[in-house]
Amino acid sequence: MKQLNIGIIGAGRIGKVHMQSITYNVPTAKVLGITDVFKDGLQELADKYGIEKVYDDYKEMLADKDIDAVLVCSSTDTHADISIEAAKAGKHVFCEKPVDLTPEKVQAVIDAVAEAGVKLQVGFNRRFDHNFSHVRSLINEGKVGNLELIKITSRDPEPPPAEYAAVSGGMFLDMTIHDFDMARFLAGSDVTEVYASATCLVDPAIGEAGDVDTAIINLKFENGALGVIDNSRRAAYGYDQRIEVFGSKGAAMAANDTPTNVTIMNAEGVTTDKPLYFFLERYMQSFRDEMVQFVDAVLNDKETPTTGVDGLNSILVALAAKKSVKEGRPVKISEIM
Amino acid sequence: MKQLNIGIIGAGRIGKVHMQSITYNVPTAKVLGITDVFKDGLQELADKYGIEKVYDDYKEMLADKDIDAVLVCSSTDTHADISIEAAKAGKHVFCEKPVDLTPEKVQAVIDAVAEAGVKLQVGFNRRFDHNFSHVRSLINEGKVGNLELIKITSRDPEPPPAEYAAVSGGMFLDMTIHDFDMARFLAGSDVTEVYASATCLVDPAIGEAGDVDTAIINLKFENGALGVIDNSRRAAYGYDQRIEVFGSKGAAMAANDTPTNVTIMNAEGVTTDKPLYFFLERYMQSFRDEMVQFVDAVLNDKETPTTGVDGLNSILVALAAKKSVKEGRPVKISEIM
Amino acid sequence: MKQLNIGIIGAGRIGKVHMQSITYNVPTAKVLGITDVFKDGLQELADKYGIEKVYDDYKEMLADKDIDAVLVCSSTDTHADISIEAAKAGKHVFCEKPVDLTPEKVQAVIDAVAEAGVKLQVGFNRRFDHNFSHVRSLINEGKVGNLELIKITSRDPEPPPAEYAAVSGGMFLDMTIHDFDMARFLAGSDVTEVYASATCLVDPAIGEAGDVDTAIINLKFENGALGVIDNSRRAAYGYDQRIEVFGSKGAAMAANDTPTNVTIMNAEGVTTDKPLYFFLERYMQSFRDEMVQFVDAVLNDKETPTTGVDGLNSILVALAAKKSVKEGRPVKISEIM
Amino acid sequence: MKQLNIGIIGAGRIGKVHMQSITYNVPTAKVLGITDVFKDGLQELADKYGIEKVYDDYKEMLADKDIDAVLVCSSTDTHADISIEAAKAGKHVFCEKPVDLTPEKVQAVIDAVAEAGVKLQVGFNRRFDHNFSHVRSLINEGKVGNLELIKITSRDPEPPPAEYAAVSGGMFLDMTIHDFDMARFLAGSDVTEVYASATCLVDPAIGEAGDVDTAIINLKFENGALGVIDNSRRAAYGYDQRIEVFGSKGAAMAANDTPTNVTIMNAEGVTTDKPLYFFLERYMQSFRDEMVQFVDAVLNDKETPTTGVDGLNSILVALAAKKSVKEGRPVKISEIM
Repeated sequence: MKQLNIGIIGAGRIGKVHMQSITYNVPTAKVLGITDVFKDGLQELADKYGIEKVYDDYKEMLADKDIDAVLVCSSTDTHADISIEAAKAGKHVFCEKPVDLTPEKVQAVIDAVAEAGVKLQVGFNRRFDHNFSHVRSLINEGKVGNLELIKITSRDPEPPPAEYAAVSGGMFLDMTIHDFDMARFLAGSDVTEVYASATCLVDPAIGEAGDVDTAIINLKFENGALGVIDNSRRAAYGYDQRIEVFGSKGAAMAANDTPTNVTIMNAEGVTTDKPLYFFLERYMQSFRDEMVQFVDAVLNDKETPTTGVDGLNSILVALAAKKSVKEGRPVKISEIM
Repeated sequence: MKQLNIGIIGAGRIGKVHMQSITYNVPTAKVLGITDVFKDGLQELADKYGIEKVYDDYKEMLADKDIDAVLVCSSTDTHADISIEAAKAGKHVFCEKPVDLTPEKVQAVIDAVAEAGVKLQVGFNRRFDHNFSHVRSLINEGKVGNLELIKITSRDPEPPPAEYAAVSGGMFLDMTIHDFDMARFLAGSDVTEVYASATCLVDPAIGEAGDVDTAIINLKFENGALGVIDNSRRAAYGYDQRIEVFGSKGAAMAANDTPTNVTIMNAEGVTTDKPLYFFLERYMQSFRDEMVQFVDAVLNDKETPTTGVDGLNSILVALAAKKSVKEGRPVKISEIM
Repeated sequence: MKQLNIGIIGAGRIGKVHMQSITYNVPTAKVLGITDVFKDGLQELADKYGIEKVYDDYKEMLADKDIDAVLVCSSTDTHADISIEAAKAGKHVFCEKPVDLTPEKVQAVIDAVAEAGVKLQVGFNRRFDHNFSHVRSLINEGKVGNLELIKITSRDPEPPPAEYAAVSGGMFLDMTIHDFDMARFLAGSDVTEVYASATCLVDPAIGEAGDVDTAIINLKFENGALGVIDNSRRAAYGYDQRIEVFGSKGAAMAANDTPTNVTIMNAEGVTTDKPLYFFLERYMQSFRDEMVQFVDAVLNDKETPTTGVDGLNSILVALAAKKSVKEGRPVKISEIM
Repeated sequence: MKQLNIGIIGAGRIGKVHMQSITYNVPTAKVLGITDVFKDGLQELADKYGIEKVYDDYKEMLADKDIDAVLVCSSTDTHADISIEAAKAGKHVFCEKPVDLTPEKVQAVIDAVAEAGVKLQVGFNRRFDHNFSHVRSLINEGKVGNLELIKITSRDPEPPPAEYAAVSGGMFLDMTIHDFDMARFLAGSDVTEVYASATCLVDPAIGEAGDVDTAIINLKFENGALGVIDNSRRAAYGYDQRIEVFGSKGAAMAANDTPTNVTIMNAEGVTTDKPLYFFLERYMQSFRDEMVQFVDAVLNDKETPTTGVDGLNSILVALAAKKSVKEGRPVKISEIM
């Protein structure tokens, strides 16, 4: 069996997730080498997962003939440039989201991979979640009929540090971007217009940093369906990730995942588990499955399931949402490009 | 025990609901007489519930000294005028919603009852629903903390005839008005701004009649919370009536009521009941409880739980939502008055 | 419309339930008179429900030509004798359970009503519960296929006073008898053998009084199915009333009813309502529906839905369970008669 | 990090499960070699998981100095003899259940490992299931108070071939043995008496082969609690694995696991997933976790979580259940030894 040789650029939280899931759960691929701007603990990590090579920097990795594909897991501001370089070096690219905070640079990445004839997959892992992908299957099978309403509940367990707001591009580009992609995925259609009402109710420091932490976002889709996303940066009960689609034949809803299916009944009430605490717990299976599909797309020359266009369009929606809040009016996606 | 003598004006669907629930379930009141512009079957109805008097018209009822209070259950366009006449005749008034389609006439009713010193209650029965009133109690008890998000799902099992759109004032004034009142009730605060995206996906004839049948409506509240309502005129699985409130300490959600709590597990899946089919089944208990409180307010000189101001404000929100759809922008409530 | 004139013998808890539900919810019947050995408050009760007659004793009631049927809601030890007298007086009889603690006297009641040609219904109200009757319907419709297993969970919220054990005949005759009838109802078949393991874990005083408060009871049915009932006299979370039937095509389960369908999610967990507290709350609808069917059976000369034979057979199973615990072995029903 | 070198004897279904989970998910151990009486595909299996050695027979494996521990995954009739030989060879032993169908041979294994001073763990994987271990934790934390009732629902999706009945020792020794161990685990106490009613309702051929396929089994525990297990060899909706514990402070219940948490609502009803189909899907996580604990027990010289005594006692209960069915009476465990 041919194994895909993968290099991972960036050994932070998400880079480690990929190391582990490729090593243990993707028999068709192998992490050949890793690199990071922070060298501390990098060799130990390589040893832990039996990774052969630790590169001084990503350029060294890109120069390695044995590397077939790279995962760009570095900081967001470097995603686009590294992806372009990797494409030029003939490597297939898996790029974490967002590809970039500006549509122009995302487009540059799309152009670069097209020219190089390599694969590009963007890390919208939630499409691979067992619940959400099942809802999409039900839609495909016609179980909800003609799609009319899409509702996404997406709330983090706790807010990031306020200073994160500046570098991340704000809640819409950092957090809601996953929901924008999910909305497009569920709708099977692009967003044409956004109206976002957003405010700062969780942490005043976030507001002072110019960002929001609570929002309700209306979406209109090309196919006529309507959508809504609600966000909060802090849910006291943990990570709240639910979706609902409604159509002419019925509705499908994905509830939260929980650690167990145990119920306790006592004098206080009937109590079940809180949702899995945060995205590593909640989406671990999806991180593995997106990797399985990336490797499959490369090895068998298939289209990747989340393309550069998906990366671009979600950013356009996020920028439209920001503009909508700023200007207090619905914003068409066509206004952004 | 003193019993309140009630006259019911309008013996249609909702008039009958009140006849039955007062007769059988409100020991503190008695339906003394009824009247309707349609005479067919009226006497039989009186006989069925042991009602003494059948009046030729509502003016005759208003002239009857024995009548303490009237329920205005006639067609919407007559609500305001009859309520004003009733107030002038010294009768306490329970008026079905909407009081009128124009804020001016609703204000006239409010003024008339104030001048006459009689009680006015508006038929926002859902506030008395066991699920929704419990959510409100949880908010009052501080269980969800500072309120941040309010979500209402409200979908009818089947659309009304398209011609109904014209006389009813459209979906926002006929159907969503209940949700606007619920939003205000849950928020404990008034709506300041509305953005509605709405469309016609269920029945083209509704669109041709100038109305919508599918909508997502953003709300901003005076207290800083955000809200969203989603509506459809046709849910294949029945009447969908759910709410969710989210705040700094957690969330509370009311699920649909069902005929039974029975689950069937077989080769096809694990299946439970659909929601109760429509509003008579779903809200029967609330129709009784609103009447109990109306009677209590009159007999014991308390404030009614749903006032003329509630009736007025919900209409303002509905009109703002209509304007928002027409003009494609968020509309402030202050623009409507 | 002909109304059935009903006399109620015994104005305790269950007698009052019937007064209320007949008066307000059974239009085809009327409570003409009541009587009780305790006279205190009896007239007030009659006034409250608009009941015309208060008899000095039940014999006076039975002598009243206007009375069509009586409800025997007096203490258990008088059920059989009063029922027999009522039958002889030509009155139709609704008798609360248990008809008697001895099979012989139950048989005597069955014989008396047969001879008098009057109707007899025994108060196994749970058969009329919306959940349980729906499970029975699903079985009838073939949805679970050939019946193989029947499971009943039946737990009271709190134990009765220990002294009650003596007069009531013990847990099996007082509490489990409802479950024995439910088992027969669900199985559509008679019990042939019982093995009961029972103990006293809730209140030592109950054990000292010679009774048990915790039990698991195995049943074998004539049709080959197996059954199990578990009982406790004290569930910290309230009244636990669930059933499950399992067959060749699947299973059907009835969950507990709750005051609301509201869920609270907070740092402690995801919490829903406890079950409705006790039998008056849980089974109110069934008390009304059994009365509707009794009245219908009398007015339209139909078979009553719960017959004297049902009353007899449940007592036989209860006595077999007692014997099983005493002798530590399975006991056949045929050993009891 | 020291890694435990493991040899797997028997490369059938469960042997493969352990190969995979150790290779990918137990970093502290390594499958050094495998062996099986069937040679077909064995080398391919070794290649797939990167296993170095394929032994001609288990004796060759036991002679290998590099092997620290063996997993006995061969056919049931060889479990005891191989375990004894392995212990004598100084290897730690993980033995699949049942250790043997006779208490004498199980005792011989217990004696052999004691004499050799090696560890023995018996494959009662369900104790490690996320739901069931959480219920046990809740009991330990005092959340259900004094334990009074234990209920286990255990139903297979489809019956085994009838001929399997003979070699497996029958349903109680093959299937229910897991439930007997679970009952002991939950009770934290040994079973003292069993009454089983069992029958053949699923497949007549099973009955002809002398076995049963449907059962309800009463248990009494040393600590005074009562228990019940219900079994079927065929649940039309899949693998049904639920438990409930009830005590003085409340109850805890573990529901089935499902592939997704998605609900579909349409004209037919509100439908969720069936349970995970069978034990490989349902208990995969528990197979990994039992291995993690076995490896930990060996490496760090701790007691294994499921001991030879657990293996023995479950077999005693199973034999008592068989005797109970045969003789139609409750059987004490003390009668079996």
